[in-house]
Amino acid sequence: MIVIMTPEAAEAEIAAVTEKLQSAGFTLHRSPGIQPVVLGAVGGNGYDDREIRQMAGVAEVVQIKDEFQLSGKKFRAQTVIKIGEVQIGGPEVVIMAGPCAVESETQLRKIAPTVKKAGGKILRGGAFKPRTSPYAFQGLGIEGLKILRKVADEHGLLVITEIMDAGDLPAFLDYVDILQVGARNMQNFSLLKELGKIRKPVLLKRGISATIKEWLLASEYLLAGGNYDVILCERGIRTYETMTRNTLDLSAIPLLKKLTHLPIVADPSHGTGIRDHVIPMARAAVAAGADGLLIEIHHEPEKAWSDGPQSLYLNQYEEMMEQLRIIGSAIGRKVEAPHLKPSLMFE
Amino acid sequence: MIVIMTPEAAEAEIAAVTEKLQSAGFTLHRSPGIQPVVLGAVGGNGYDDREIRQMAGVAEVVQIKDEFQLSGKKFRAQTVIKIGEVQIGGPEVVIMAGPCAVESETQLRKIAPTVKKAGGKILRGGAFKPRTSPYAFQGLGIEGLKILRKVADEHGLLVITEIMDAGDLPAFLDYVDILQVGARNMQNFSLLKELGKIRKPVLLKRGISATIKEWLLASEYLLAGGNYDVILCERGIRTYETMTRNTLDLSAIPLLKKLTHLPIVADPSHGTGIRDHVIPMARAAVAAGADGLLIEIHHEPEKAWSDGPQSLYLNQYEEMMEQLRIIGSAIGRKVEAPHLKPSLMFE
Amino acid sequence: MIVIMTPEAAEAEIAAVTEKLQSAGFTLHRSPGIQPVVLGAVGGNGYDDREIRQMAGVAEVVQIKDEFQLSGKKFRAQTVIKIGEVQIGGPEVVIMAGPCAVESETQLRKIAPTVKKAGGKILRGGAFKPRTSPYAFQGLGIEGLKILRKVADEHGLLVITEIMDAGDLPAFLDYVDILQVGARNMQNFSLLKELGKIRKPVLLKRGISATIKEWLLASEYLLAGGNYDVILCERGIRTYETMTRNTLDLSAIPLLKKLTHLPIVADPSHGTGIRDHVIPMARAAVAAGADGLLIEIHHEPEKAWSDGPQSLYLNQYEEMMEQLRIIGSAIGRKVEAPHLKPSLMFE
Amino acid sequence: MIVIMTPEAAEAEIAAVTEKLQSAGFTLHRSPGIQPVVLGAVGGNGYDDREIRQMAGVAEVVQIKDEFQLSGKKFRAQTVIKIGEVQIGGPEVVIMAGPCAVESETQLRKIAPTVKKAGGKILRGGAFKPRTSPYAFQGLGIEGLKILRKVADEHGLLVITEIMDAGDLPAFLDYVDILQVGARNMQNFSLLKELGKIRKPVLLKRGISATIKEWLLASEYLLAGGNYDVILCERGIRTYETMTRNTLDLSAIPLLKKLTHLPIVADPSHGTGIRDHVIPMARAAVAAGADGLLIEIHHEPEKAWSDGPQSLYLNQYEEMMEQLRIIGSAIGRKVEAPHLKPSLMFE
Repeated sequence: MIVIMTPEAAEAEIAAVTEKLQSAGFTLHRSPGIQPVVLGAVGGNGYDDREIRQMAGVAEVVQIKDEFQLSGKKFRAQTVIKIGEVQIGGPEVVIMAGPCAVESETQLRKIAPTVKKAGGKILRGGAFKPRTSPYAFQGLGIEGLKILRKVADEHGLLVITEIMDAGDLPAFLDYVDILQVGARNMQNFSLLKELGKIRKPVLLKRGISATIKEWLLASEYLLAGGNYDVILCERGIRTYETMTRNTLDLSAIPLLKKLTHLPIVADPSHGTGIRDHVIPMARAAVAAGADGLLIEIHHEPEKAWSDGPQSLYLNQYEEMMEQLRIIGSAIGRKVEAPHLKPSLMFE
Repeated sequence: MIVIMTPEAAEAEIAAVTEKLQSAGFTLHRSPGIQPVVLGAVGGNGYDDREIRQMAGVAEVVQIKDEFQLSGKKFRAQTVIKIGEVQIGGPEVVIMAGPCAVESETQLRKIAPTVKKAGGKILRGGAFKPRTSPYAFQGLGIEGLKILRKVADEHGLLVITEIMDAGDLPAFLDYVDILQVGARNMQNFSLLKELGKIRKPVLLKRGISATIKEWLLASEYLLAGGNYDVILCERGIRTYETMTRNTLDLSAIPLLKKLTHLPIVADPSHGTGIRDHVIPMARAAVAAGADGLLIEIHHEPEKAWSDGPQSLYLNQYEEMMEQLRIIGSAIGRKVEAPHLKPSLMFE
Repeated sequence: MIVIMTPEAAEAEIAAVTEKLQSAGFTLHRSPGIQPVVLGAVGGNGYDDREIRQMAGVAEVVQIKDEFQLSGKKFRAQTVIKIGEVQIGGPEVVIMAGPCAVESETQLRKIAPTVKKAGGKILRGGAFKPRTSPYAFQGLGIEGLKILRKVADEHGLLVITEIMDAGDLPAFLDYVDILQVGARNMQNFSLLKELGKIRKPVLLKRGISATIKEWLLASEYLLAGGNYDVILCERGIRTYETMTRNTLDLSAIPLLKKLTHLPIVADPSHGTGIRDHVIPMARAAVAAGADGLLIEIHHEPEKAWSDGPQSLYLNQYEEMMEQLRIIGSAIGRKVEAPHLKPSLMFE
Repeated sequence: MIVIMTPEAAEAEIAAVTEKLQSAGFTLHRSPGIQPVVLGAVGGNGYDDREIRQMAGVAEVVQIKDEFQLSGKKFRAQTVIKIGEVQIGGPEVVIMAGPCAVESETQLRKIAPTVKKAGGKILRGGAFKPRTSPYAFQGLGIEGLKILRKVADEHGLLVITEIMDAGDLPAFLDYVDILQVGARNMQNFSLLKELGKIRKPVLLKRGISATIKEWLLASEYLLAGGNYDVILCERGIRTYETMTRNTLDLSAIPLLKKLTHLPIVADPSHGTGIRDHVIPMARAAVAAGADGLLIEIHHEPEKAWSDGPQSLYLNQYEEMMEQLRIIGSAIGRKVEAPHLKPSLMFE
């Protein structure tokens, strides 16, 4: 910790700060050549510096300790998560698509082939749904997990779905490839500690008003438990603007690329909440450098059990994939999208 | 649901909306005398109206259903929670005070007598601590609950403390009078469902960026489970301002007094994060109509294991209680504060 | 400026920072005894430190310079603005009340006697109205100023009203005692510079998303011009919450009391936007330490030309004044409110 | 206006609302077939509905009137602003680039050739600078306008720069092609009214916490004055996140494309504040559908008089243009960028 005194700080004030820090277990060094006086305090792990900030003569307190011990760039340059042949965090932009909620095997079988054909690698779908109101549909539960696994296997896809309760962990370990932690649970530390003990990838969504720092510290809970396969997912933050459901904070992507080695994906479906805004923001996320996308699609969005209005039609998803492929090429990233329409070809 | 069409809406557009709603199970009524056309749709529980909002010719969609079925004023005029001789939600402003974290029996014995003597009724103290960083002190756990109970009993106080994990519920039922749900867990629906099953009061803190509506819907999870003894606690929301730790939203108090029968208390310690701001905001909260306060105090704040900088010194707490008593009198509320200083007496 | 290097910073990185700062005109001092390395840079006025923050090996940059040269506590302990017998910033909490918009002489004559009788000192009323939509009523203009002056003089009141355009300054200097700068113009630097040249008090409202720091720097524009009679007015900030019009940030009051010598008042009418919330928040503002209040009242709010829904009825205003008097007594402040109701008397 | 009563509203309450609206000049129609009761109120221009919202039995009030009379899609499908050969709002994505502040003729001559060569059409540079602190560099003033004009003409570029004071308008009309209104002045209605009278394009930046609605209503001030050549510019909004200077709200772009015919451009330089984030967000803005970009570049950013840390080096600007060209092709937009690097070519 570095304590910077005000230019007018009296010697008695400097002495009081020095004494308080020494009694808290710090070793103090005073800079001889600098005005204002700067005190370097070594030791005293986890000291709450607000006490010092309130002392007379103190201008500023700066903590130097590296907070992102395991998620920071010093620990590792880049994490590439390998699940079978899929690599998240590598050169490919990985697309995870599917319905908001798993409704039935029939429903998933109408969606999964398009996910795959257009280049998606991972099937998404909610089985346990966190709902703001206790009176809303809460998901199919474990039955949903089984359906996801079955239909994904039929089409050569991986499975991602949200876990809300550590008690459900055994079923998730049986049926799921990537466990998703939703925005509301980003700081559910009991859940994070349990997920730190497993050895399957976890996708950690940003809390609706989480700072980048809080988000990375939440990921530390997973990494500190020994689970290093963590994917961060930007899904929109809460701002004063109400015309959009959330404000998708794409500037988090280049920022995180500098701070952490963890892959970062974006969820433009929840980030915007409106179907017509999903594709522009999906393109923008890839252009900004996202390692992947989480996209809601449905064969009949108007009949979806939840979040239909933000779900793409299957043909919209296909068109989006073609646009993403071109955008990926502008920045040296691969998006697998085999069925290029001639009209969109590059001249 | 009421659908209001735009003044220019064509008959074909009106017909399309009508048809979509009918196919979703609604019975439709069209207003003959109103321009623009208004459609009343009866039935179709829980329909996601964003689909309708995106249709051509639709100006606005309004949901009428009463969302706060159990927490709203229609269900009950006012909830008064009775625990022994203490009543929360009645004429008295109830003060809950104590350290941020339970550190030891010795520590609590230095604080509890002042809590009681100055008029406090409930002893607070954290035994399970939600910490942003996994490397910070996480609390004494069940040992802390036992210490709280013991020292509170010695001084005729009740006990409030935070629960983070439903797995700890048996110990909380043994030792605690009011179970606190922290801001980070306000939408931990798994935890809320479990707490809805018990029959002890729950204090539900507002999430750091929760709207009033989301907060009341979270309380519905508790009430829907049959636990009607819910206390709401405003503890500061996240805004763009960084000079204060949070922005204590006192305007939530008069607003909630109109919307809900549940008692509402304020936590100016977490709401401000700075000792010198706690007393002014505690006074303001009572002046705004709060039914109680949650206050952090410590006999030696500078040595506190956590949140010392926002903890009041014991004598500050006593002075605050005297001021609160006078403010309470301005609005017909009682604050029990027996040791009035002559200098503060009302002329 | 203090530059704190990371613990791992290489000597070459330290040298690069040193060189860049020297070439920008700074004299550099390196702390010999501190780890990590701390560089003190003297000189180089107004340097944009983001350049340094982006250099390799830099952990943190701290600016020490005192930004609030004239509005800060170092310049002066407390400003008391004297206008005739009224003192703002002294022991009395000064109430400024009146309608949102000046509508006519008749209207003001129905309101002004109550303003005075219940203890108010200053008559408010808008003559130039900043309206979000160009199609809304824009105020009576200079005619409104004349009406305000005339009716205020008849009742022994001072006049406060909003100025939007420096071109109107001559009329304001003729008819107005305190010139109000609205939230939307808090950073209209052209206007602020002109108001810095006059010698009448200016009330500077906080911008709707202004930080405390930006607000004090805006007041610096006035003070730097030589106009030291500046009153700050908290009027609610923009947050994600939509059930209240704005979020009245009362924690700004104790914070500003530590940072600046300028008086600080609150506007609970604009701060809440709803009549029934105005009185609780007015009480809370005084309890938090405000030096005054700006309150909208109207003899017939339901017929007011603007902001009727947030205007108090005259009898509500009188009741509020009685409550404020008692609250003031709890903190040693005077609120002049002569007509005490027996029912509210202190037992 | 549509007033929706609660399901429990008594006839007396319905009558009270009806009467109040009739006395305010509305003609009332009551829906016979709809439950709850819906009242259609015709007339009563600009009525403040908060008064009705506070009445007993009222569930919701909905305003139907079209607020964006001139900026909305009903008035016009798409505005294409033509200045010489440059068209803003057409198929081409128009790049406006240059230094934050005009420093000298020499400086601009080092930057302008690259602006042009890489495909930029408009030279930007601040001559009047709005500065948060009164002690910071305030710009070269009219001398800066002359330099901009001269150097732009030498290189076949147009000129855009910010106007802060209507008093400077004659000089702007002489030297400038597009007048920029900064974020702090978005609701400086006096200035907007003056700019509504001229017949030169105005670029209106979004206020730092302006809603989309407030922004479009501010543009109405310009359009209502008869100036239809208005460009909207997203430049980042204020949120709780502090690691980025502002949060560039790219989702505003697809949203505005549905609401308004006005062209919309993005300013990733102010939107991020950090050089390394500018290019990813510039790419994202084009991918999201922006009609143009406003970009700060400098031949020696580290020596720039202002905002150097967010200014691109000239070669970074060139690389960005090549990437933008490819991204434009993915969505059928043209970005003129003649010097394609082979390494970035599409395979």
